[in-house]
Amino acid sequence: MKAYFDNSATTRPCPEAIDAITRTLAENWGNPSSLHYLGTAAGKVLTDARQSIASRLSCDRDEIFFTSGGTESNNLALTGAAYKMKRYGKRIVSTAIEHPSVDETLNRLSSEGFEVIKLGVDSFGRIDENELFEAVTPDTILVSVMLVNNEIGTVMPVASARKAVLRARSQALIHCDAVQAFGKMPVKPSALGVDLMSVSSHKIHGPKGTGALYIRKGVRLQPLLSGGEQEKKIRPGTEAMPAIAGFAAAADALPDINTELSSVTALRDYMVSVFKKEGGIKINSPEDALPFITNISVIGIKSEPMLNFLSSEGICVSSGSACSKGKKSRVLTEIGLDRDALESPLRISFSRYTTKEEIDFLCEKISEGKEKIRHIK
Amino acid sequence: MKAYFDNSATTRPCPEAIDAITRTLAENWGNPSSLHYLGTAAGKVLTDARQSIASRLSCDRDEIFFTSGGTESNNLALTGAAYKMKRYGKRIVSTAIEHPSVDETLNRLSSEGFEVIKLGVDSFGRIDENELFEAVTPDTILVSVMLVNNEIGTVMPVASARKAVLRARSQALIHCDAVQAFGKMPVKPSALGVDLMSVSSHKIHGPKGTGALYIRKGVRLQPLLSGGEQEKKIRPGTEAMPAIAGFAAAADALPDINTELSSVTALRDYMVSVFKKEGGIKINSPEDALPFITNISVIGIKSEPMLNFLSSEGICVSSGSACSKGKKSRVLTEIGLDRDALESPLRISFSRYTTKEEIDFLCEKISEGKEKIRHIK
Repeated sequence: MKAYFDNSATTRPCPEAIDAITRTLAENWGNPSSLHYLGTAAGKVLTDARQSIASRLSCDRDEIFFTSGGTESNNLALTGAAYKMKRYGKRIVSTAIEHPSVDETLNRLSSEGFEVIKLGVDSFGRIDENELFEAVTPDTILVSVMLVNNEIGTVMPVASARKAVLRARSQALIHCDAVQAFGKMPVKPSALGVDLMSVSSHKIHGPKGTGALYIRKGVRLQPLLSGGEQEKKIRPGTEAMPAIAGFAAAADALPDINTELSSVTALRDYMVSVFKKEGGIKINSPEDALPFITNISVIGIKSEPMLNFLSSEGICVSSGSACSKGKKSRVLTEIGLDRDALESPLRISFSRYTTKEEIDFLCEKISEGKEKIRHIK
Repeated sequence: MKAYFDNSATTRPCPEAIDAITRTLAENWGNPSSLHYLGTAAGKVLTDARQSIASRLSCDRDEIFFTSGGTESNNLALTGAAYKMKRYGKRIVSTAIEHPSVDETLNRLSSEGFEVIKLGVDSFGRIDENELFEAVTPDTILVSVMLVNNEIGTVMPVASARKAVLRARSQALIHCDAVQAFGKMPVKPSALGVDLMSVSSHKIHGPKGTGALYIRKGVRLQPLLSGGEQEKKIRPGTEAMPAIAGFAAAADALPDINTELSSVTALRDYMVSVFKKEGGIKINSPEDALPFITNISVIGIKSEPMLNFLSSEGICVSSGSACSKGKKSRVLTEIGLDRDALESPLRISFSRYTTKEEIDFLCEKISEGKEKIRHIK
């Protein structure tokens, strides 16, 4: 048996996405910028794909800009907004547990003279709304809060960012990294009051190599790349058509989110109950985390040997985020885990393909791993 | 019959690339940063792909950095080098007929205070070596010269850039946009003496959505994107694995370049001889252009109606570059085309799949188009 529990790192491409990609490669491989019939046909694929993503975000097609993925979307949003808004101020407010593509971009902006505030979080990974209200001043130009944390699954109070900006009478743009939320909970930028939202293809059973940035109508960003006129010059370069077509097909194939959420929650609750029965396992995710992500610490067993043991048994989990292999987790440090728990985290992330049988297999093997690895030591 | 002559805009993905992409999507879809067995397997695909591109450039695997395509490679090379080198000077030397992703990036750097020199070209699109020697001063930090022009096929004297830098005793880095040359002529960055070289997948029958930047060992660039540790932090973000695997398969499938060059040259010479017999057609490309690209002007017939007529007959050509639809060509203006020729350019670009039958069909339909479009007027 094999069991894949690393869906927050990447997901298995769904058949619909693979079909769409293959069709784009074999039949519809023109350049959308070309004026002949093959270009026109490719342009239609691009327009349809834009509509598919827009429909999932309940926004207008013209508000969707394709990028190479979540990292580029986050970089474009933050850098593009900061540079565009710098004449109004230099203060940027965010949180201490953002994804590295946000966190490191904030560090770069800070080194360039922007004043970056990273709000701390409690043991559940939550920022305090009052602290957010205090942090957002009239001269704040940008607020960036992720919707779901990628390591522990905490759902962040993103809508509070708009409240904070309104209270401060600030012109700040609001960005939301929704990479781990998109397709896994209802996500609607207009309802959340955000101006910019990043989503990624390969976290929703689409291919790696594309993502999108939602840019609310009327909002202007400074592009990261210079060149041709693609994506209204916000993102020049020939569009990654096969991946974009696959991303759209994956978005179209997403099941009803509310139904899925309740079945995934039931599976997560079941898994947690088995861990509690087993003992010696600390649950690092809050109870009301998005049920797709559960972070645990198997006390006394370091992540790496456990991960390797599970891998040898056909089970994929992660020791933190895929993007920072080997290093101690910044997110888990921020939520105040003690040293023991910090050395032994495992991130177990579900998809809509996850089954109870896989969970039983995982729990059994974690239990077995505990004994075996202790024995070796 | 259908005939595709827009290979400089994009190429039909080869079967080898489609196979590799499909396999990556269906079987080998792990995240290369993940530590479990699926991650390790994906990491191997990535390493093998890097080796495939490196082999084609006769360089070391560690000198290849995957990007989202030619535009990003050019942006990363120029911006990354300029920012990294700015303490040594602010002078950048390039040419007036670079691709928009170079030209516009140079404009941006110029607006940021860099001193950008764009060398003019003669009627063949060639820069003068002596002008290059004069332009490159001791405090020049970057020289960027494309290998093959994307609109007229001129092969540029890239190796002269190294001579110029040595003569000036400058520390300048040398970048070469080799997007239109890679796979179509022998391309070896070390032989050309360049430090940075951009190549793209979808111009060599690979998929859209990836490309690479060659960075000579020891050369340091400031990254464009911030985030995870992928591509040694030079290009963070989950790797576009399906596209990268397809790019590598397309590179592996490239035929012997010298054999191909002679057969494509014969086809090009044949086409030009038919155009000369036909009359009323000006050849805008130099005789020694890379034979894959031939720019012509059908005097008296504007590009758009001819392009549309050919498209309606199943023939794809371009009116300039795919990236700047509708606008008068900067490249053709720079080589000094007269007004008539400037209004009627067609770019006919070959691939290794181009046949004599297709060329006959094209020539026949251009001849027919001349009569029909004149008749309408």
